[in-house]
Amino acid sequence: MSRPTARVVHLVSRPSGAPSAENFAFVDEPVPALVAGEALVENLYQSVDPYMREEMEEGGWELHAPLEGRTLGRVVETRADTLPVGTLVFHRQAWRTHSVVTAERAHLLPDFAGVPLSAHLSVLGGTGLSAWVGLTRIARLRPDETLFVSAAAGGVGTAAGRIARLLGAGLVIGSTGSAAKAAHLTEHLGFDAAFDYHDGPIADRLREAAPDGLHVYLDNVGGDHLEGAISAMRDRGRIAWCGAVAQYNNLQDPPAAPRNLYDVVGKNLRLEGFLVRDHLDARPELYDFLVPHLRSGALVPDETVVDGFDRVVEAFLGMLRGANTGKMIVRI
Amino acid sequence: MSRPTARVVHLVSRPSGAPSAENFAFVDEPVPALVAGEALVENLYQSVDPYMREEMEEGGWELHAPLEGRTLGRVVETRADTLPVGTLVFHRQAWRTHSVVTAERAHLLPDFAGVPLSAHLSVLGGTGLSAWVGLTRIARLRPDETLFVSAAAGGVGTAAGRIARLLGAGLVIGSTGSAAKAAHLTEHLGFDAAFDYHDGPIADRLREAAPDGLHVYLDNVGGDHLEGAISAMRDRGRIAWCGAVAQYNNLQDPPAAPRNLYDVVGKNLRLEGFLVRDHLDARPELYDFLVPHLRSGALVPDETVVDGFDRVVEAFLGMLRGANTGKMIVRI
Repeated sequence: MSRPTARVVHLVSRPSGAPSAENFAFVDEPVPALVAGEALVENLYQSVDPYMREEMEEGGWELHAPLEGRTLGRVVETRADTLPVGTLVFHRQAWRTHSVVTAERAHLLPDFAGVPLSAHLSVLGGTGLSAWVGLTRIARLRPDETLFVSAAAGGVGTAAGRIARLLGAGLVIGSTGSAAKAAHLTEHLGFDAAFDYHDGPIADRLREAAPDGLHVYLDNVGGDHLEGAISAMRDRGRIAWCGAVAQYNNLQDPPAAPRNLYDVVGKNLRLEGFLVRDHLDARPELYDFLVPHLRSGALVPDETVVDGFDRVVEAFLGMLRGANTGKMIVRI
Repeated sequence: MSRPTARVVHLVSRPSGAPSAENFAFVDEPVPALVAGEALVENLYQSVDPYMREEMEEGGWELHAPLEGRTLGRVVETRADTLPVGTLVFHRQAWRTHSVVTAERAHLLPDFAGVPLSAHLSVLGGTGLSAWVGLTRIARLRPDETLFVSAAAGGVGTAAGRIARLLGAGLVIGSTGSAAKAAHLTEHLGFDAAFDYHDGPIADRLREAAPDGLHVYLDNVGGDHLEGAISAMRDRGRIAWCGAVAQYNNLQDPPAAPRNLYDVVGKNLRLEGFLVRDHLDARPELYDFLVPHLRSGALVPDETVVDGFDRVVEAFLGMLRGANTGKMIVRI
């Protein structure tokens, strides 16, 4: 049998400011013969995520070397007993059409009949888990409470909107980067109110949307959004901070922290950061909660699926620019 | 019976920058005849506290009017059944030698035989309660954890050091404004390490004192201290933020928030503010925990007691400058 050739993306230079396609190169690599314990996976879906922008900096991904990322694929050749041919797996050897994995580095995907495979990269994957952990473990959102989500049209944001609705939230408010996306949030994604953050001070938009203030803010952005949300929080409000897309292009010179940070004291606020990788034990809770809603059709994952491995860099750069609504996924 | 005359302090002007004695005036006022439901209290002890600095600003205390503050006194004349002559009470009509109170505005002091009365203004009062709430409810300090306390020689700070020790904390580290106070903290107040915050970057001092990092930071200061502590926190560290002495002279122009605030995400930190007035229900817990230690002598309250009502303004200004160790109290 002739060995397949893997098509692979390498990082070839580090960006100063916004990254571009020139920072990446496509390379063809022969797939090596398997040794005992290994399996060859043909990749089916790959996730592109905001944190990858940080990996492009010095100290992150190596240049001219394999990159990582959340990937779903099917075993097509095996020398590992626990990974028979045909098995669907999740692994992190991404940015390539074929990956060689070991059982330790590939996780069997749970078999949820009636649930689309790509959901494991969206609402059942890291972005859904981020929203779940942020809303339940960190912010402890209660029924009827008012929630604000920044970057609301993104992967975590759309999952948060859906999950909050299913949890019985009261007002759900989102911010996003265009009027069209704001309309999409309220018309199709279950948000009660949404605004374009270019459209005046965020604190003012929040006061219009939620005159009685916010109980919970799920922060994906930091900077001005955090300052505006602190201003609009009710007493004893909770802020779950799970990343800062807006800051990734400026790591050498992070934006000023909120000028009203001292209101954390005056309003008895809780500001709590989290990395979803430190909360992977929450995944069974997420499955138990969401799979019935996925099966019943009460929950449709919000995904932007880009077709073709050749477009993986384009998809990544588009995600950073905010071209997606919902989780950005590449079908390989 | 001739009516006593009350000696009273009024605020007569608002400070720009640090306040001075000229912002206050002493006034003699006749004590009015009591009406039904009122009692006349001869004041014995008064607390001077950092929050009073904020009250001096526009929107706070009125000029040429009665001021408030935590006060202990004894009923000397009464037309209130629940406040018989001789009763010891806590009330907030301060900055005066005599106060007319109603039963609604005066709280009977619990009778803790063997516990000095002034403890109700220090470790059993607002400062002790701030430390208790910050360490137990907010930060949830666990045995053997490393604690950092800023403004450690102040009222909240010394109470926090004592309470942390009794709770079984591991390393207890304090920062303060002079080498002499730092020595006092380690030699007399149970701190394992202490430093003068003028002595180089706070993050560096913390790394020397706690090479394995901080589990908990009780913040009384904000600003540089908060930034240094964030830098020195361990993963999943907790910051209980209960006020910001350093900021009270600059409310028009608050100091920059920590430049490393984004580490709240990267380290899974929790930053939680609180106002002790919203946690008064914790007082019975505090009494239950501390009174046995006060009676046994295991805990001696750390107080700076200034003698004489005529020195109340001097005591307040001294507290703002950091002239006290432990809670600053005026014996009237």
